[in-house]
Amino acid sequence: MTLNELDTPAVVIDLDRLEANLGAMQAACDAAGVALRPHIKTHKCPEIARFQLRAGARGLTVAKLGEAEVMADLAGCDDLFIAYPLLGESKLARLRALCERAEVRVSVCSLDQARLLSAGLGATRVKVRLNVDTGLLRDGFEPDAALDAAQRIADLPGLDLVGVFTHEGHCARLETPAAVAECGRSSARRLVEVAERLREQGLPVTEVAPGSTPTALAALDVPGVTEVRPGTYCFWDANYVHRLGLDLDQCAARVVVTVVDHPAPERVIVDGGSKTFFADSGGWWGRARCVELPELTLPSCSEEHGQALWTGAGAAPVALGQRLTFVPHHICPVINLVDCVNVLRGEEVLDTWRIAARGMVS
Amino acid sequence: MTLNELDTPAVVIDLDRLEANLGAMQAACDAAGVALRPHIKTHKCPEIARFQLRAGARGLTVAKLGEAEVMADLAGCDDLFIAYPLLGESKLARLRALCERAEVRVSVCSLDQARLLSAGLGATRVKVRLNVDTGLLRDGFEPDAALDAAQRIADLPGLDLVGVFTHEGHCARLETPAAVAECGRSSARRLVEVAERLREQGLPVTEVAPGSTPTALAALDVPGVTEVRPGTYCFWDANYVHRLGLDLDQCAARVVVTVVDHPAPERVIVDGGSKTFFADSGGWWGRARCVELPELTLPSCSEEHGQALWTGAGAAPVALGQRLTFVPHHICPVINLVDCVNVLRGEEVLDTWRIAARGMVS
Repeated sequence: MTLNELDTPAVVIDLDRLEANLGAMQAACDAAGVALRPHIKTHKCPEIARFQLRAGARGLTVAKLGEAEVMADLAGCDDLFIAYPLLGESKLARLRALCERAEVRVSVCSLDQARLLSAGLGATRVKVRLNVDTGLLRDGFEPDAALDAAQRIADLPGLDLVGVFTHEGHCARLETPAAVAECGRSSARRLVEVAERLREQGLPVTEVAPGSTPTALAALDVPGVTEVRPGTYCFWDANYVHRLGLDLDQCAARVVVTVVDHPAPERVIVDGGSKTFFADSGGWWGRARCVELPELTLPSCSEEHGQALWTGAGAAPVALGQRLTFVPHHICPVINLVDCVNVLRGEEVLDTWRIAARGMVS
Repeated sequence: MTLNELDTPAVVIDLDRLEANLGAMQAACDAAGVALRPHIKTHKCPEIARFQLRAGARGLTVAKLGEAEVMADLAGCDDLFIAYPLLGESKLARLRALCERAEVRVSVCSLDQARLLSAGLGATRVKVRLNVDTGLLRDGFEPDAALDAAQRIADLPGLDLVGVFTHEGHCARLETPAAVAECGRSSARRLVEVAERLREQGLPVTEVAPGSTPTALAALDVPGVTEVRPGTYCFWDANYVHRLGLDLDQCAARVVVTVVDHPAPERVIVDGGSKTFFADSGGWWGRARCVELPELTLPSCSEEHGQALWTGAGAAPVALGQRLTFVPHHICPVINLVDCVNVLRGEEVLDTWRIAARGMVS
């Protein structure tokens, strides 16, 4: 089958671009002597996870216990970091079972959560990393609070405090690649400093893991960083093209849609709406950037209608039934909407890959 | 199993409320002598569709061919309206196959699309309805354009022009229940007028179908309306509680989450983010309204973190591990994110229903 035979809307993955993106990040981490533990929340796909592991990834990062279970069972991953606070009897029973088949690190966001985790582990031991908030103001410890709580967490039964991590998502809001990178280095330095102070307390904190997608490369420059865990780099997206100064051509995941109506010269309706493109949007492009017609923006969507707007001169140069390719603003929630993606080498559809870890509600 | 044993985040459907919502809309339509053809895009669930059909629905409305196929095959529905312009060889082949097992009506948005549809039908005949834009400025014909094109569409081989419909989504943006209702009546009157003028042209346009969720009840008041096709009424949501002056207790679909962090007195992190609550938001409540703590709002989410904000006095009265129930702002894309919903009678989990028509990308 070829690309043009796929029914639309279709999510397609360009295998050459995917391989290039995965290889470039792995090479950068290898050159810096820093472990790469990719976050699979972007692709949720065992085939891509296996590629990352074969290429040299240290293990995988996941956001949910259900994702960890899928990656252990379908991607054969035996080294998982669940970057999320786990709570509750059922989840901790599942965690104990997962620890039978993989080495699992889990996030600790508060002393209370660590106590509940410890109490629910039974005879299981798990490695834990403190979630340090380096500026996002979301979850986890402020740096000083991490220093205050660490010894008490390390003393809890069943917990081996081995590291610290941070999600410096606030850096992704900055407008220039240089500002994003400097924010990333600054967050990484704060995290390294927390780790150093914990070691001064006598705690064996050897794992220092900043580096979500926008700042992973910048974090490699900071001495003391041992691991990064970018996710979106496998595909990139229109947001990162803008924030990091990438080329749109580097984006490996795209959405192919069909023009289904053209009710006014500047207004074009395509058959992907918010149930295809999600609702995150960015700069002038809106929900996604059009590859063939850069001046065709996607400022708004209803659920199955993309309301594209032609910003060039004259009428939009489209015909009913024409297919168009869009690079989403934010690719992670787009992949999460489909059960399968179509894998391309050039125009040929080689395979479909199941997004096996989507829909893992818990 | 009981509600408290479900892992979170969990989407739950309260069966008593669902039955009440479905029954009330059917009763209103029956009293007005207007057919109800519910839009299944909200629930995408064969069990709920079968309930609607048993209660007296005329047939079902769908947004996608894939949804129509699921509803024919899994809900046993033999009377489907695909309220979307279908284009392309593969889709029209699927449409022809679907017409073998159900009566199918399809949307026509332009003369060009009608020609492509007609050309792709082979020996199949389908009933078509003109999509008339009564103010949304999205897809379809302006009223005068519909009058100009109708005869040429009716003359195309394979097409039986039987009706007109409109999606008056612009009414849903108005702030008061009275304004929403008046907008709905006005749109319905415009649509009835188009139908009358088409009948004056000698065209047998007997089906006049306005009435998406916010305006369905108002449209019942307008003489000449033969059918409405609300969707969200099965569950309602926080948006409609506000727009239509409903009671939050009428909302049948909720999301149960757990408090996983409480990093500051007013900030609470719950384990549902934008991959659970989607990204649509409304008034003071944000992405969803909290049932137990009305002053706990959900202004922002990252993918798996709901960043709830306590707007009451003092610190948020929550404990780590506590479960909270939220009514989403917009329920349709929330249901579309999960593979299954949990069906409750009171606190008891009676069943899980598969959202079988989600992930039907095309």
